[in-house]
Amino acid sequence: MRLEPIISSVKNPTVKGIRNLRTRKGREQQGQFWVEGIRLVGEAAQQEAPIELLVVAPDLLKSSFAWELVEDLAGRGVPCLPVTGAVFTSLSAKDGPQGLGAVVAQRWYPLPSARESPDLWVALEEVQDPGNLGSIMRTADAVGCKGLILIGNCTDPHDPSAVRGSMGSLFALQLVRASQDEFTVWKSAAGMAVIGTAGGASVHYRQMRYPKPLVVLSGSERQGLSPTLMAACDQLVSIPMVGRADSLNLAVATSVVLYEVFEQHNKNTGGY
Amino acid sequence: MRLEPIISSVKNPTVKGIRNLRTRKGREQQGQFWVEGIRLVGEAAQQEAPIELLVVAPDLLKSSFAWELVEDLAGRGVPCLPVTGAVFTSLSAKDGPQGLGAVVAQRWYPLPSARESPDLWVALEEVQDPGNLGSIMRTADAVGCKGLILIGNCTDPHDPSAVRGSMGSLFALQLVRASQDEFTVWKSAAGMAVIGTAGGASVHYRQMRYPKPLVVLSGSERQGLSPTLMAACDQLVSIPMVGRADSLNLAVATSVVLYEVFEQHNKNTGGY
Repeated sequence: MRLEPIISSVKNPTVKGIRNLRTRKGREQQGQFWVEGIRLVGEAAQQEAPIELLVVAPDLLKSSFAWELVEDLAGRGVPCLPVTGAVFTSLSAKDGPQGLGAVVAQRWYPLPSARESPDLWVALEEVQDPGNLGSIMRTADAVGCKGLILIGNCTDPHDPSAVRGSMGSLFALQLVRASQDEFTVWKSAAGMAVIGTAGGASVHYRQMRYPKPLVVLSGSERQGLSPTLMAACDQLVSIPMVGRADSLNLAVATSVVLYEVFEQHNKNTGGY
Repeated sequence: MRLEPIISSVKNPTVKGIRNLRTRKGREQQGQFWVEGIRLVGEAAQQEAPIELLVVAPDLLKSSFAWELVEDLAGRGVPCLPVTGAVFTSLSAKDGPQGLGAVVAQRWYPLPSARESPDLWVALEEVQDPGNLGSIMRTADAVGCKGLILIGNCTDPHDPSAVRGSMGSLFALQLVRASQDEFTVWKSAAGMAVIGTAGGASVHYRQMRYPKPLVVLSGSERQGLSPTLMAACDQLVSIPMVGRADSLNLAVATSVVLYEVFEQHNKNTGGY
């Protein structure tokens, strides 16, 4: 596959537009985000994410699997921007860039309407750390969640650390954003069960019987759930702790509860 | 409390020595690490970590709780270095430094000998991400682990991100480091049960009956467990996944298994 002409200027307007996706402001202005590396671009393609532009550095891209992927996507009509290794490196957040990236359109979904479906959702209020968000997306995908509801002022799921941390699970989840008000109004109207995680809650997370459909809701790293969202929960559950620690990492706590829900909903082991 | 004279030069030799603790090399040369913030220094004091030097910036430190802590530690004979806000900021990794830090001696323990104690340990092979290590220390503490065994070329538990991520749980755990060989020889000699986590393992992590004492062993983020350490395990367990994800974040996976062990060992809920 021949790709010409190759862009060699870091000041090329398209290249500058891609570099703009490093910031949240740039991502929101353009409604896009940057996905880098063979694995992640491959996941985006497989999950039929809306790839708007492929960026290829022929002098860096060695993998024949990756070249097949490029040809496949080009065949599906995805435009391709060939750049020099130096230009690609200027776009890359990686130490050893592989020479393949993609500009993908952000896709936001409305709050789900289907109250009768047995879906599992994760909701997060004001999550701040993109690494945590990425890890939670990965677990959410692994337990078969339909999507992720981001409430209030959350970090961006399209932040490079979140995208990387999700290992591609980002593309498998429906992303929804809502204000506190929108979430509480929707919860009542849709009749969705919401179980919140909270340090002080009296119900042990394994004593809870988790209904379907269900939203598992966690609060921010520092503050936990706000009183308003706590009040909106049908039940609050806590994870026991015996040591000095008075809380768990947010991604860990959310994942421990999600795996209990998964176990109950799927009866994987037949219980004790 | 009056602290004089206040050091105002970032080139002061003691200040340079503390700044040296930013790098792993510096930490290993000096056998120390840097702990920052009121909460973490307070945890270090409560857990009787070997604090060798307190660093206080009177123009930044406003909390009366923190000043009481400083007086208490000074009363226990801990030397105190007063510095200007500018010098403290030069040492700080935080955006809004609180003006309290401590130089703490690293404490490494030998591989445990007590085969008859019902202790739970976590072992990690070649863990790379200090944030993951910090989160795992936090969970390990929360489920009552005795300590953490770091096998092979792991990231440093005294890395600022690991210390911060541990939220002080670092001080509650015995830290051990061992080569692959030392670990496998010790495992046989001590008669410790070792259960490894591995993606492809046929035993569901909830089907396993976890003995006491026990070591829960996980591999690196990228490679998982090495064949050598897999072979050293009494059993390998896996966590089921249904989505696109083919693995979980390392801290999440280790924590999900640790919480199943905790549940079984403590029979918190009486089972299903």
